[in-house]
Parts: sequence; C-alpha cells; structure tokens
Amino acid sequence: MARTNEAPSERTRAKRLNEYARYDRETLHAILDAAPYCHIGYVLDGAAVVTPTIHWREGEEVFWHGSSASRMLRKSAGAEVCLTVTLIDGLVLARSGFNHSVNYRSAMLFGKTEAVEERGEKLRVLEYFMERILPGRWAELRPASEQELKATTVLKMQIAEASAKVTEGMPKDEPEDYDWPVWAGVVPIVTETKPPLADPRNLPGIAMPDYVRKYKLG
Amino acid sequence: MARTNEAPSERTRAKRLNEYARYDRETLHAILDAAPYCHIGYVLDGAAVVTPTIHWREGEEVFWHGSSASRMLRKSAGAEVCLTVTLIDGLVLARSGFNHSVNYRSAMLFGKTEAVEERGEKLRVLEYFMERILPGRWAELRPASEQELKATTVLKMQIAEASAKVTEGMPKDEPEDYDWPVWAGVVPIVTETKPPLADPRNLPGIAMPDYVRKYKLG
Repeated sequence: MARTNEAPSERTRAKRLNEYARYDRETLHAILDAAPYCHIGYVLDGAAVVTPTIHWREGEEVFWHGSSASRMLRKSAGAEVCLTVTLIDGLVLARSGFNHSVNYRSAMLFGKTEAVEERGEKLRVLEYFMERILPGRWAELRPASEQELKATTVLKMQIAEASAKVTEGMPKDEPEDYDWPVWAGVVPIVTETKPPLADPRNLPGIAMPDYVRKYKLG
Repeated sequence: MARTNEAPSERTRAKRLNEYARYDRETLHAILDAAPYCHIGYVLDGAAVVTPTIHWREGEEVFWHGSSASRMLRKSAGAEVCLTVTLIDGLVLARSGFNHSVNYRSAMLFGKTEAVEERGEKLRVLEYFMERILPGRWAELRPASEQELKATTVLKMQIAEASAKVTEGMPKDEPEDYDWPVWAGVVPIVTETKPPLADPRNLPGIAMPDYVRKYKLG
C-alpha cells in the first residue's frame, strides 16, 4: 500500500482535500463511514504512538471516545493527531513481483483535537454514535449515570487537512509482461458481520432486535 | 477499543513483551501473522503521520516495503516508529452504553527501523514474503529486474518493545444490570477472502493455481 501512497498510478485516485471538490468530500466521507475503526497517531515524548479506536463522523467532524483514564485520550486531547482509516479490498496478483499490490480505500486526516466537555453535548454525540449503528438501541439501554459520563472522554476533530486514496481493479503490468505465462488476478477481501450471538445471561423471552439482525458494517 | 487499552478488565489480556513470557511471544506472533496489514506511525516535522502498509514477520523481525520514492519509507528509514496491527473480531453489545465495547486483537511495536540494503538479502526477504502467502508463485513470476530491486525499499524492525492485547467474549455488565430487559450479545466481525477473480488479460489456458484457490488470510 505504501507503494501507491505517494506515486499515484493509473490504478490509484489520490486527491488532497484542500482542493475540496465535491467528489473528494463524498469519497472521504464514504471511506470514513465504511471503516469500523481507525488508527490515531500522536506524539508522546518525541515518538509516534498509534492506537486503534472506534470513530464516527457527523457532518464535517470525526469523533472518538473512551475511558477518561486512557493515555491516548489524555495525551491527544487538544493535540495534533493523524487519524487514518484503511479498508483492504483485495490482493492484486500481477505478472511480476514488483507490480503486485493491494486494492484499498484509505483516508488520512490531520488536525487538532478538541474534547467534547459539555454534558448535554457529550450525551447527544454518544447517542448519535449508537443510533447511527444500532437505531433504537439507545432508548432500550440502562441510562448512563453521571459517573459513567464523567469517566468517558469524547474527542472530536474537524475534517480539514485530509486526503483519500482508492485503489481498485486488475493488476497493471508492464506491456511486455502480459505474455508471461502466469495466472494474474485479484483475491477479493471483505470485512463483514456474521450471525449475532446472544449472551447466555439474557433474560428469558428477550428476542434479538431487528436492528441487531440487520446490522451491517459501513 | 481505546477504552480497554489502558484499563485491562477481566475481558482483556494485556501483556508487555518486556516480561516476555513464552505465552506473550506466541500471542504477539499470532496477531502479527494474522493481520493482513499494519499502520506505521512516525514523526515528520514534529507531527505524527500514520500510513497503512503490508507487513510480514520472519522470526523476531517485522518487514515492510514499497517504492523507494515513498515519503513514508524515506522518512522512516533509520527512524523510531510505532507499528500497530489490529484485527476486529466483534461488536460487544452490553446492557448499558458505557459497557459496550469491541472484541479485538492488537499488537503495538516500538523500535528503530533499518533498511535491508544488500541485494541478495533484499531478494531473499521479498521471496520469503511472497512464498509465505502464495507458496510456489515466486518461481512462476517474471523475475525482478535490477531497476525494480533498486526502486524497492525494504525496511525491518526487531520485535523488542512490544505489547499485545486480546479482548474476547460476552459483555461484562455491572451486576445489577443483568436484570435490565435488553438484548445483549456479540456481533462477530470477520475479514476474509472471497473467490479469486481472473484477469481478463490472462493468456488462454492459464488455470488458477492451487495456491491462489487455497489462499486464506492469516
């Protein structure tokens, strides 16, 4: 993937969001929404630290959350971070080792994070996060306690400096290599859900909700 | 995921590799081998940059490669990086919003990278990479040219300062929440291959090799 990251070929569409064509913004949003989690990089004592976390998008902002005791959240609040999401779509088997590659969708965001401090706003964005994935669940849950809200840190970041990359299709071999007698093609890779598993401790008579049954990634 | 990253609960096994029990080393190797790609963080002009790339492991070293023109590879050669891999295994739906979480396997490595410069060694590790995934393919390909080898940078890093985290199983709710009448459980998530797609430009009579048909992630 690094191979195509800085040398866009015919197989790669790479756009800086500074140009901010509507097309790019839609691509970026689609990648952010399709990815179930991201990796957040920040600098700690001069070294990069990369931590996975679940993110969600609302309009032109990206959010993530976790324990207020989390080192990542404490150290990256108010700091510059790099948020990267990557979806791998296939292995691309070419006729030379050199032209092997990966089909993927990736987005990279740079910016300063901000904590969502206000109690009402924190509750609202957490509800939005849950309802976007599992519509109807928030109202069914045991409501959040004040202690839990305090123990939860929510960070957000504007989508400002960002880029999206999409690589797709069949291998792109050297013209003279198409006569080389080796199989070429793509092995598709998907990330998807399997049938949900009920907690054995569920109360008798509690059926699986439709929003769980219907849940799909992306 | 950040929630469980620094506050290991009964659901999380988190081990620093400094302690280096055999158990941890095996867990770490298994996670590195199962993940089809990683995210590499490095510091550029004081800011963290997080780039996805394909990695592979041989013994106690992790490798990755790409175009010698890649900014990530040029800037991270000889530098301190953080290499993180994450496999997401399920959404964990608890009885309170607070106890919702994710089942995942993650490994985080810190260290200084080193370029694989010597021609023979570079070829050998690239062959190892290909053969580990698609045994038999290397010998079938159009051989690498000197120009291609020069245009390919391979970096490696010792597995030294590292940690692995595995979170699994059903939600862990507060004792009093088990009476709350809401469905709880896990939605499994898998990343897997689908049937390979042949390049329409394959020569007539070229059949799909067994190593492609049998390829599985991990």
